[in-house]
Amino acid sequence: MSQELRAVAWTGNSLTLIDQTLLPHRDETVDVRDVDTLVDAIQRLVVRGAPAIGAAGAYGVALAILQGEREGWTGAEVRAAVARVRAARPTAVNLMVCVDRVMTRFAEGLDAVLAEAAAVQREDVEANRAMGAFGADWLLGRVGEDRPLRILTHCNTGALATAGWGTALGVIRELHARGRLEVVYADETRPLLQGSRLTAWELVQEGIPHYVQADGAAAGTILRGAVDAAIVGADRIAANGDTANKVGTVGVALACADAGIPFLVAAPTTTVDLATPDGDAIHIELRGEDEVLEWAGLRTAPAESRGHNPAFDVTPGRLVTGLVTERGVLEVASGELPGDHLK
Amino acid sequence: MSQELRAVAWTGNSLTLIDQTLLPHRDETVDVRDVDTLVDAIQRLVVRGAPAIGAAGAYGVALAILQGEREGWTGAEVRAAVARVRAARPTAVNLMVCVDRVMTRFAEGLDAVLAEAAAVQREDVEANRAMGAFGADWLLGRVGEDRPLRILTHCNTGALATAGWGTALGVIRELHARGRLEVVYADETRPLLQGSRLTAWELVQEGIPHYVQADGAAAGTILRGAVDAAIVGADRIAANGDTANKVGTVGVALACADAGIPFLVAAPTTTVDLATPDGDAIHIELRGEDEVLEWAGLRTAPAESRGHNPAFDVTPGRLVTGLVTERGVLEVASGELPGDHLK
Repeated sequence: MSQELRAVAWTGNSLTLIDQTLLPHRDETVDVRDVDTLVDAIQRLVVRGAPAIGAAGAYGVALAILQGEREGWTGAEVRAAVARVRAARPTAVNLMVCVDRVMTRFAEGLDAVLAEAAAVQREDVEANRAMGAFGADWLLGRVGEDRPLRILTHCNTGALATAGWGTALGVIRELHARGRLEVVYADETRPLLQGSRLTAWELVQEGIPHYVQADGAAAGTILRGAVDAAIVGADRIAANGDTANKVGTVGVALACADAGIPFLVAAPTTTVDLATPDGDAIHIELRGEDEVLEWAGLRTAPAESRGHNPAFDVTPGRLVTGLVTERGVLEVASGELPGDHLK
Repeated sequence: MSQELRAVAWTGNSLTLIDQTLLPHRDETVDVRDVDTLVDAIQRLVVRGAPAIGAAGAYGVALAILQGEREGWTGAEVRAAVARVRAARPTAVNLMVCVDRVMTRFAEGLDAVLAEAAAVQREDVEANRAMGAFGADWLLGRVGEDRPLRILTHCNTGALATAGWGTALGVIRELHARGRLEVVYADETRPLLQGSRLTAWELVQEGIPHYVQADGAAAGTILRGAVDAAIVGADRIAANGDTANKVGTVGVALACADAGIPFLVAAPTTTVDLATPDGDAIHIELRGEDEVLEWAGLRTAPAESRGHNPAFDVTPGRLVTGLVTERGVLEVASGELPGDHLK
């Protein structure tokens, strides 16, 4: 079913989002008809994953136009609403890129905006399919073709996180489709458990054998020799290959480097921000302390404790063995920098 | 209050354990009068932390003698009960060492056994105090005396995990007592949250400023330059310095090595197992899958998912900047191996 799974779907006059805060227990959608609801959905992670947020933001321009028509907004008010969508989360560059792209057709009216948003979504699925093939080819060539691979991943990068198919999980699905995948180790990805709730749910849909493990288990699993390669997504990639992704990613990268196995980042070129020279220039979102201090409304830490909750971390480009985009694989750690290749 | 906090206390004819599964919400004790209850308490982590388990095991010999008297056991039956205590958890060497030490006085009867168990407990507290001083001296000499230190720790190694005071947390308490501590980053330590539930609770008791963070945040926090050193405990240390400790530890060590900051292990010499040449020879306990697939009885992963739940990982000695024992600091990564120094 997963080829048809759509985290973000335009219905004709509203945006339907799978409510990813409720998975895997409840498979429900949210019908979004106004900008406030969309901004809230992005901030609460009803929709998450950089490419999926980008697609939602693209359609958000159409939502702003429709809401403006209903409520008699001026053009400036519509643009202000679009700006709020664009700023709903700070780290993922796709949101800004996709909103800006659709806004280039704003003056042409709703139909042009919708056509551009649909193109954003369609191209993302195509990019994911291409990444899946490039990533699988590279891994099988590098790690060897003698047996199915054992792959570790962190967070969720599947159909739920994208316009469809998946980035890192798209490579994993491609390996599975070729009969070259033994098992996936899915980090649970605290604090919000995108790994155990969402990645595991997608892997179940695909019939892919997998283990869910605590994030702390990743380094030990890798150093013990149980993993052939790790592959993750990205929220923003600097010109030098430094990569912002879900908190916990750089620990996986360090373990891969120590074990001498490939660490791959799979992301469309829209995730590369050539205006960002390196990781130091990436703004890392600090989320609410309660996400780490509470569980399902129950306080797990003492009332007096403070929480430190960065949503992302930065993996230095020197640890990124390969960056898989829809154009191919850049061997970043060996000196192939996005800033040199993607201009 | 913490100097008086005792995770393990002999009452005269029973063993009182703080039920660490209930903290920080409920501060209750379990009164243990028979071997089955003790084994269950060790396996359920009512009592946990290698030195605390060692102390509980030491008194377990007395419990077996008393239960044998009540129930008319033969000497062989008493010894079989002691063997069950000794094998209750496989990774922490202290349990075996402490049980074996007390058993050397088994033939002398209950009073001798109790005297030896009390000595085990008293010596552990003394060792912790010595480690605190050695560790604080070493850190202040190495990291510099110009400002208070920012220390990261993983799991719980305080009074709750020991016979009293603490190992790694003992060093942290010593820094705090000297006015040389700025803040502690406490990894929450999934799956059982010993960091957010227990370490944070002890830090609150001591009035030590701290942040609880997801385990995945540790590497990024370290690479960002927010931490001056990391210090953890150990469950078993091989002759070459390879160290088994709570799962997630080796990821902290890799990040410290990459950032060029000290990674310290604080553990009494009873934790060093010279019969174990290296980490490959350490048996790593695999715990139940549900610990990672469920939360407070609620399934978080899909029903079809499997869990991978190693309780520990092994940090290679090459990543252990310093091993703090009650005798001093061994610079393991620089070639000072426990096997050479502690015979």
